[in-house]
Amino acid sequence: MTRNTGYVWHERYAWHDTGTFAGIVPPGPMVQPFHNFESPESKARFNSLVEVSGLIERLTPLRPRPATEEDVLRVHTARHLEHIRSQSEQSVGDAGDGWSPFGRGGYGIALLAAGGTISATDAVLTGRVDNAYALVRPPGHHAERDLGMGYCLFANIPIAVEWARAHHGVERIAVVDYDVHHGNGTQRIYEDDQNVLAVSLHQDSLFPQDTGRVEEIGRGEAAGTTINLPLPAGSGNGAYLAAFERVVEPALRGFRPELIMVASGFDAAAVDPLGGMTVTASAYRAMATTLVELADELSGGRIVFSHEGGYSAVYVPYCGLAVLEAMSGHETGVPDPYAFSFENSPAHPLKSWQDEVISHAEVLARQLGLVV
Amino acid sequence: MTRNTGYVWHERYAWHDTGTFAGIVPPGPMVQPFHNFESPESKARFNSLVEVSGLIERLTPLRPRPATEEDVLRVHTARHLEHIRSQSEQSVGDAGDGWSPFGRGGYGIALLAAGGTISATDAVLTGRVDNAYALVRPPGHHAERDLGMGYCLFANIPIAVEWARAHHGVERIAVVDYDVHHGNGTQRIYEDDQNVLAVSLHQDSLFPQDTGRVEEIGRGEAAGTTINLPLPAGSGNGAYLAAFERVVEPALRGFRPELIMVASGFDAAAVDPLGGMTVTASAYRAMATTLVELADELSGGRIVFSHEGGYSAVYVPYCGLAVLEAMSGHETGVPDPYAFSFENSPAHPLKSWQDEVISHAEVLARQLGLVV
Amino acid sequence: MTRNTGYVWHERYAWHDTGTFAGIVPPGPMVQPFHNFESPESKARFNSLVEVSGLIERLTPLRPRPATEEDVLRVHTARHLEHIRSQSEQSVGDAGDGWSPFGRGGYGIALLAAGGTISATDAVLTGRVDNAYALVRPPGHHAERDLGMGYCLFANIPIAVEWARAHHGVERIAVVDYDVHHGNGTQRIYEDDQNVLAVSLHQDSLFPQDTGRVEEIGRGEAAGTTINLPLPAGSGNGAYLAAFERVVEPALRGFRPELIMVASGFDAAAVDPLGGMTVTASAYRAMATTLVELADELSGGRIVFSHEGGYSAVYVPYCGLAVLEAMSGHETGVPDPYAFSFENSPAHPLKSWQDEVISHAEVLARQLGLVV
Amino acid sequence: MTRNTGYVWHERYAWHDTGTFAGIVPPGPMVQPFHNFESPESKARFNSLVEVSGLIERLTPLRPRPATEEDVLRVHTARHLEHIRSQSEQSVGDAGDGWSPFGRGGYGIALLAAGGTISATDAVLTGRVDNAYALVRPPGHHAERDLGMGYCLFANIPIAVEWARAHHGVERIAVVDYDVHHGNGTQRIYEDDQNVLAVSLHQDSLFPQDTGRVEEIGRGEAAGTTINLPLPAGSGNGAYLAAFERVVEPALRGFRPELIMVASGFDAAAVDPLGGMTVTASAYRAMATTLVELADELSGGRIVFSHEGGYSAVYVPYCGLAVLEAMSGHETGVPDPYAFSFENSPAHPLKSWQDEVISHAEVLARQLGLVV
Ligand SMILES: [Zn+2]
Ligand SMILES: [Zn+2]
Ligand SMILES: [Zn+2]
Ligand SMILES: [Zn+2]
Repeated sequence: MTRNTGYVWHERYAWHDTGTFAGIVPPGPMVQPFHNFESPESKARFNSLVEVSGLIERLTPLRPRPATEEDVLRVHTARHLEHIRSQSEQSVGDAGDGWSPFGRGGYGIALLAAGGTISATDAVLTGRVDNAYALVRPPGHHAERDLGMGYCLFANIPIAVEWARAHHGVERIAVVDYDVHHGNGTQRIYEDDQNVLAVSLHQDSLFPQDTGRVEEIGRGEAAGTTINLPLPAGSGNGAYLAAFERVVEPALRGFRPELIMVASGFDAAAVDPLGGMTVTASAYRAMATTLVELADELSGGRIVFSHEGGYSAVYVPYCGLAVLEAMSGHETGVPDPYAFSFENSPAHPLKSWQDEVISHAEVLARQLGLVV
Repeated sequence: MTRNTGYVWHERYAWHDTGTFAGIVPPGPMVQPFHNFESPESKARFNSLVEVSGLIERLTPLRPRPATEEDVLRVHTARHLEHIRSQSEQSVGDAGDGWSPFGRGGYGIALLAAGGTISATDAVLTGRVDNAYALVRPPGHHAERDLGMGYCLFANIPIAVEWARAHHGVERIAVVDYDVHHGNGTQRIYEDDQNVLAVSLHQDSLFPQDTGRVEEIGRGEAAGTTINLPLPAGSGNGAYLAAFERVVEPALRGFRPELIMVASGFDAAAVDPLGGMTVTASAYRAMATTLVELADELSGGRIVFSHEGGYSAVYVPYCGLAVLEAMSGHETGVPDPYAFSFENSPAHPLKSWQDEVISHAEVLARQLGLVV
Repeated sequence: MTRNTGYVWHERYAWHDTGTFAGIVPPGPMVQPFHNFESPESKARFNSLVEVSGLIERLTPLRPRPATEEDVLRVHTARHLEHIRSQSEQSVGDAGDGWSPFGRGGYGIALLAAGGTISATDAVLTGRVDNAYALVRPPGHHAERDLGMGYCLFANIPIAVEWARAHHGVERIAVVDYDVHHGNGTQRIYEDDQNVLAVSLHQDSLFPQDTGRVEEIGRGEAAGTTINLPLPAGSGNGAYLAAFERVVEPALRGFRPELIMVASGFDAAAVDPLGGMTVTASAYRAMATTLVELADELSGGRIVFSHEGGYSAVYVPYCGLAVLEAMSGHETGVPDPYAFSFENSPAHPLKSWQDEVISHAEVLARQLGLVV
Repeated sequence: MTRNTGYVWHERYAWHDTGTFAGIVPPGPMVQPFHNFESPESKARFNSLVEVSGLIERLTPLRPRPATEEDVLRVHTARHLEHIRSQSEQSVGDAGDGWSPFGRGGYGIALLAAGGTISATDAVLTGRVDNAYALVRPPGHHAERDLGMGYCLFANIPIAVEWARAHHGVERIAVVDYDVHHGNGTQRIYEDDQNVLAVSLHQDSLFPQDTGRVEEIGRGEAAGTTINLPLPAGSGNGAYLAAFERVVEPALRGFRPELIMVASGFDAAAVDPLGGMTVTASAYRAMATTLVELADELSGGRIVFSHEGGYSAVYVPYCGLAVLEAMSGHETGVPDPYAFSFENSPAHPLKSWQDEVISHAEVLARQLGLVV
C-alpha cells in the first residue's frame, strides 16, 4: 500500500551556523576549533539521498513557510522570542544554555524550521497529503517555553501542535519522541495538558542529565500523559522494538490521539557520536511502520514527523530513507550499505536490564488506557 | 613521581590517505562520498594538544625510523609485504579486506608506523626513556600474518615485539589492548606462543564480528595466554576499571612479563562514532596509571603504548593527554572540557551483566598465575 | 522584461567523486592529500543560493535525464564511452589524462551531466521555457571525441548540440565559452564543421597549454568558425566586456545561429584559485544580458547555458545568481557581498595589452559576417 | 654552501580561529557559512611538508615565546592592546576592521605570533643561527599602531624590529614585503623613521585599496625610505625577479641595513584565491636566494623571514619549502609537483606594463643610495 507522503526540506536549513565548536564545547585556549556535532552534514546528506535514490519523485514536496510571531508565541514567552531575535543580530548568538550557538540570521532559520513543521502538519490536516516528514533544522525538542537549549531554538513540534489546535480544531495529540535525548521541552510544555500525550524513548540521563526519569508522568490532571522510557546505554533494535510494542502501541491506543507527531531524531543509531545506542535503519523502518499503522488505526492516518537530532553524516541518510519508505510505502531498492556490519550486533537482542525499564513504562502505558 | 616518557609522532602519519569512504563503506552510486572514519583528525589533534598544552616539553620526542623489510618479515609473510608494497603503487590500494584503503605511498607510512613502535620500544629497552607512547598511524592490531584488515596494514606491536626479542633478548611480553575492537591480529599471531600474553578488552563482536570470544584462550602449550574480555555495548568506566582490577592486574602478575605493550585505542570513549562504549578521559588515565604501576612492579617499568583506533576528533586528544600525563607524572592542568557531561553518565557504574563477563575472564586471569 | 527560465540541478551532481587530490595533483609520498579543486562545493552552494535567495520560485525546474549511449556516440568514439564505463567500475577511474579522477559510478553521473544539458536544450527547443541553465557536474568543454581531460568526461554541450540536430532539425549553432580555460574539446569536435561557431574567451595558455591560440580558426570549409580570444592573466571586467562587444556580438551576428549554447564557467572570477583573472558578478551579469539579447535578436531567444568550471566555493554562487537573474529578468535583491572589494580593482579598465588580443579576434569576428 | 637556519612553528598557530566566514565576508541571511580564506590549512601543511620532506632535520627548531605587553607597546597603542585583549574574551572578536575575526584566546595566539618573530630575530642576532624563518599565524603586516585589519592583530615584524633595537642595539633595518597585499602597517609605523626602509611589492590596490601607491615614499626626513611597487594583476615570475634585481637589490645596497626582515606572504603565488598573480615556487626560491645573498653582503648575513599571507592550502607548502631550501642551502630533492603546469605560463616573461611600474620604483631605489 502506498501513501501520499509530504516532504519538507529547504536549503536554508543547511545555512544554520553552529560555528567552530569542538563537538559540544566552544573553542578556547585549550580547545582546538573544529565543527559542531550539530552541523548541516547529516541532514543535507539525508535530503541528498532522498533525491539521488529517486524517492523524491514518489513524495510530495512541501514548501515550508516561516512561522509567524503569533505561531511562536502560542508556545514561547515573548521574552524568549525576543532573546532569539536579538541574539540573531550578533555574529554569534546562543539559544540560552551556552551550548547552542547560532549565526547571524539564525532567528529566520529557526522560524522556518518551526514553520516547516507547521507546513507539514497543515498538509496532513487539510488532506493534501496522507502523512508528512519535515526535515528541518535547527531541532526543537529541548526548547522550553522560556529557554532554548541543546541546539534547539524553538519548540518546532509544540508550535505545530498549537497551530493545529488554533486552525484545525484538533485537540488530542500524541507526541512520540525516539531521539536519543530526552524530549524535555515537549514534556515541560505539556506537563499540565492532559490532551497531549508525550512519550519519549531515550538514553538514560544523556541530555538533559536531570530529566526523563520514569517517575516524570505529568502533573495534576495531566498525570499519566507523560511517559518516559530511559533506556540504558548500549540498547539496540530489540529494546526499541519491544518498547514500541509494549509501550508506544498501548499508550497510543489508550490515548486515542486525533493526530500523531513524531520527534524523529536518529542519534540512537549505530555510529552516532553523541548517542550510545546501536539502532539500525531496519529498526527505524519498523518503528515508522508501527507509527503509521497506529495512525491509520487511531487518527485517520494523520501523522507528522519532525526531524530532531542525528549526528552521523554517513548513516542518518539511510535511517531517514527507511522511515520515508515506511511512511510512503514506496521502496527505492537502495540497500543499507552498513547493514552487513550494524545488523549483526549482539547488542540487538533485548536484554533483561532493558526489559526492566520497558516493563516499568509498560505499566504506565496500560494505565493510560484505563485513565484517559 | 615523574618519569621520562618518550613520545613518537611524525607528520607523515597524518598523510596516510584513506580516501573518500562514507565512514566505513566505499562511495558508489548510492553512497555519497565523505571522509573515512579513520582519518588524520583525531591523531593530529591529539598531537596538537600535546604541544599546545605544553606537555611536549616534559616528554622526550623520539624520531621514528621506518621498519625494515627484515623487521616486517619477522611477523608477516613475504606475500603480505609484497601485497602492501604493490598496492601502494596504485592510486588506491587496499590492505586486504576491501575496507582498508590507502593511498600511493601508504607502504612507506605503514613502515614508519611499525618503525615508530620499534623506536619507542628501543628507547625503553635501552633505558633512554622510562616508558614511551608511539602515536602512530595507520593502526596495527587487526593485521594478521598474511592479511591486512580493519584499517591495519602491518601489525605494529608484534613487529616491535619481535624486534625486541631479536635485538634485546626480551622473551616474555604482555600485550594489553583496550581498543574497542578485538585485537584479533595480535591474538592470531601469538596464539601458539606461550611467551606472549594477549589481553584484549573490547566491545562484544563489534569487529571482527567472529573473534574475541572468551573461549578463545590460545592453543596448545599457549593455552591460557590469550584472554578476551568482550564487554557488552554501553559499558562505561566502572566496567573498564573493574576489568583492569580483576583481569588485567592478576593476569599480568601471573604472567610476569619482561615488557608490557599497550594497544592504545580510544574508540571505547564517549562520542566515538564506531564504538558503543562511554569511557572517559579519567578512566583512561586510571587504566594507564595501573599499567605503569604494573610495569614498575613486574617489568622494571618497561612499558610501551602504541596508538590504535579512536575516531572522535574532539575527544581523543583529551583521552590521550590523560594517558600521557599518567605515564610521565606531569600534570598539564588542562581540564577535560567534556567531563561535565561525560563523567556523570549513569552508564559508568558497573552493571551485573558486565560483571558476568569480567568474572569469566577473571577466572582465566587467575589461572594464568598458576599455570605459567 | 521577465522570461521563463528553465533550471537543471540534481543532487547526484554533487556526488561526483574527485578524490583526495591536492588541488590538481594526485597525493603521494611528497604530496599531502587534500581536496580536488573540482569539488562539489562551488556548484552545490550555487544551487543553494538559488534556493535560499528565492530565485528558484521564479525559475522552471527541469529534471535532467541521463544521456543514452546513442546520445553520447553522436560525439564520442565507442572506445571512449567504453573507457569511461569501465573506469567507472573501479574505485578510482580517470577520464584519460591522469588528472581527471572520478569514483565508482561516475559514468552514470557523467551521463546525467550530458543529459541535463540535453534536458535544458530540449525544454528551450520545444518552447517549454524561454531559455535554460543546466547546472551540471562534471563539466564538459575539455572532452574531445576520444579523450576525457581537464575534469571533463563527456562533451556535454556537443552532445546536446548533436541531440538538437538529430531531434529538432536545428543546424547552425553557436557556442560561446567564457570559462577561463580554453574550450579545446568543443573546438576540436567542430573544427571541420562550418555550421558550429565556437568562440572561446580564456586565459592565454592556462589549460590546455598548447591550444586556444588566435591562429586556430577551424579547418577547411570551417575556417573562420573557430574564434579564440586568449586574454592575458590579470584581465578584468573591461577586457571581458570589450571582448563581448567587439568579438562575441559581431561574430554571432555574422554567424546567425539558430541556437546559442554557452559554456558557463566562473573560473575567470576574482578569487578563483585556478584562474588568474578578476571578473566579477556584475560582468557575468552583463555578459549574460548580452547573450540573452543576442539570442532574442538572432535565434528566437533560444539560448542554453551549461555549467563548466568555477572553483571558488564562496564567489561562484553570486556570479551564477547574476547570470540567472539576467536570463530570467527576475531580481532577487541579493547584493554581491564581495562587490565592495572586487568591483573597485584597478584591474578592471581595459588595458592596451588586452585590447591588442581583442583587436586580433575582432578581425576574425568581422570576417565571419562576410564569409559565412 | 649551507647555513644554520632557525625555524619557528607552534601548533597553537593552527588554533587561531577565524570562524565560518565565506572567504572574506561574514555569514548571514544571504551568505552561506564556510571557511575563512585565512585558515590554518596553508600554514599547517607548509609545516607538515617541512617535516615530511626531512628538511626539518637540517633546520634548527626555535621555540617561540609570547611577546610581552612591553614588547607590544613599543609599537602599538595601549588602546589597541586592550582592544585585542578584551575582544579575545568574547566568543568572536574582531581586530578592528570588521573583517578580521578571531576566537576566544586569540590574544594569546597573537602574542605568540609576534613573539615567534622576536624569537627568530633573537636567534639571528645572538648568532645562535645564521638566519631564521618564523612560520607564525596570525599575520602582521596590515596592523597599524592603533588598528588591527586584514587578518592582522599585531604588527609582528615591527614588534621584532623594536625589540631588536631595544635589546641588541640594531638601528638600521630593512623590511622587504613580497606578500601580494600592501604592507600598509609596516609603512605607516615607519613612515617617519629614516632608519627603517620599507619595500613592498604587491598587487596594485588589492588590499588595502587606497594605499601602496608609488608616490607614498615616507615623510619628512624619512622621505625615500618607503618604496612601493604596485604591480598589475597577472604579474608573474619575470616581473617579480626584475623588481628584485632593479628595485630591491639597489634599495638594500643603498640603505645598508644592519638587519633584513622579510614579510613572507605567498599569496602572489599561482592558484592563490586572494591574489591575482602567478608567481611560482622557483621564483620564491630565487627571491629568497637574492635576499640571503644581500644579507651576506650587507648585514652580516642577518635576515629573518616572518610569514604573512598565502591562502592556497596546496601550493604554499612548496613555495615555502623553496624559500627554506634557499635560506639553509639544503636541498630536499622534493620537486614542485605543480611546476609542470605553473612554470610554463606565458604570464611569466616581463611585460612592458610591468616594466613601467618597476622603472618608477627603480628611480626611488637608486635615489636611496644617494640620499641615505
Ligand atoms: Zn538528540
Ligand atoms: Zn578500534
Ligand atoms: Zn575552467
Ligand atoms: Zn596577503
